[in-house]
Amino acid sequence: MSKDSQTTRYKLTLEYCGKDYAGWQSQEPHGPATIQASLETAIYGFCKQKVTTVVAGRTDAGVHARGQVAHVDLAPFTKPMTCYEITKAINAHLRPAPIAVIQTEEVDGDFNARFDAFNKLYIYRILNRNAPPTLDRDHVWHIRRSLNITAMRDATPILLGQHDFTTFRDSECQAKNPVRTLDRIDIQSFEHANDGGQDIFIEVEAQSFLHHMVRNIVGTLLLVGEGKWNQDDLCRARDACDRTKGGPTAPACGLTLVRVDYDR
Amino acid sequence: MSKDSQTTRYKLTLEYCGKDYAGWQSQEPHGPATIQASLETAIYGFCKQKVTTVVAGRTDAGVHARGQVAHVDLAPFTKPMTCYEITKAINAHLRPAPIAVIQTEEVDGDFNARFDAFNKLYIYRILNRNAPPTLDRDHVWHIRRSLNITAMRDATPILLGQHDFTTFRDSECQAKNPVRTLDRIDIQSFEHANDGGQDIFIEVEAQSFLHHMVRNIVGTLLLVGEGKWNQDDLCRARDACDRTKGGPTAPACGLTLVRVDYDR
Repeated sequence: MSKDSQTTRYKLTLEYCGKDYAGWQSQEPHGPATIQASLETAIYGFCKQKVTTVVAGRTDAGVHARGQVAHVDLAPFTKPMTCYEITKAINAHLRPAPIAVIQTEEVDGDFNARFDAFNKLYIYRILNRNAPPTLDRDHVWHIRRSLNITAMRDATPILLGQHDFTTFRDSECQAKNPVRTLDRIDIQSFEHANDGGQDIFIEVEAQSFLHHMVRNIVGTLLLVGEGKWNQDDLCRARDACDRTKGGPTAPACGLTLVRVDYDR
Repeated sequence: MSKDSQTTRYKLTLEYCGKDYAGWQSQEPHGPATIQASLETAIYGFCKQKVTTVVAGRTDAGVHARGQVAHVDLAPFTKPMTCYEITKAINAHLRPAPIAVIQTEEVDGDFNARFDAFNKLYIYRILNRNAPPTLDRDHVWHIRRSLNITAMRDATPILLGQHDFTTFRDSECQAKNPVRTLDRIDIQSFEHANDGGQDIFIEVEAQSFLHHMVRNIVGTLLLVGEGKWNQDDLCRARDACDRTKGGPTAPACGLTLVRVDYDR
């Protein structure tokens, strides 16, 4: 039960394709479609309750999710429903949007999807080859020029741990404190059989991220992969605490929020 | 050089999303869009040569490819072009279609993309969970009911090796001989963290396949996974050599031609 004893709090795990959405967060009425508004409309559709969902990570326009988490408080239904039934009911009302609830769980009333998350995993995908993407078009950043993955990998320790990440946060980021702790950056690459190209997966974990932080880190690491920057350049950029000293922002379509962890 | 000494034969490795196409093969003029017609139009666009491409596997409507192979004979260009330049030129003319040449190679004039292929790898993807697909919507068969992967895996030897595959070929299949040799069927499954669901990948290899053969095999194995059929049922269906005794045809969207092998 939630703090308001009339309602029950539910944790929703969500998957979505962000391609045609203006990100998670609801905007003004009649604004562009958002994931949050679509979800809240679907919840209203099945139980006629106007709710506000609270989410772990407010993904930007075009960013995808495989394991986003939100919580919502719902008043008792006219007849009792299991979590499985709630999942099915919301999904029925989400159709045909590319958004789905993959799990619904009843949680304590003090569970908070945003503040209780102690870890988030994002994966950024790069398709590194000459030919344009086809099957994966909306899910990768396409880079033609050859990338030195070893150099990128060797540079990642410069970003690990606790730092002021001002260089890697959007100039409009509203977080009061630019200090974050990056717990993991791993770069996996899988060579293609035919064309000398590769699929690159950059996995990044932290408790919380600044606005555009993953995309700015990826865009900056790419300068290292292209041989334009060395490790000293990356150190200097990090220590400058100045967004204009960082690399470009990688496009949204390559980014997926894969998992949010609770309960240490 | 090809048999016609005025032309050079090229082997093209292709990737495409089959979703919005009526399959590989060109149809009557003004018919629905096909991969072959799109490719031949792009080749005409860059070098003004009307060509007919020959393909390893004529994929059906909705079927995807990551490593389809075709060959084409081209007359000398006004100025010499490398294979890399030909790839880029064709891709420029394919845009914005979700079709790309990922490699172009000059080959002997007696190379034949269709008849020289000694092995093809298809992968069929199933998303086995309650929630509908979002990110992978056009690339999986969505199955809600729980599947017994072990039972499916244990049944695969029944289909391995040389058999009359009439039960698994489309009633309109035009191959003269229904005997084929299935060299490999492997079923991989990856459990989801959240929802008790799984991603299932059915990998199938043979030198050649009958029409709808992979999709009919998948649809039939699913009966085993659902517990509706046991191994004896599958044996009887195989031995009946009668399409009406097989399971349903799995949808095209889950199927991808991943690789075609030449040169033993």
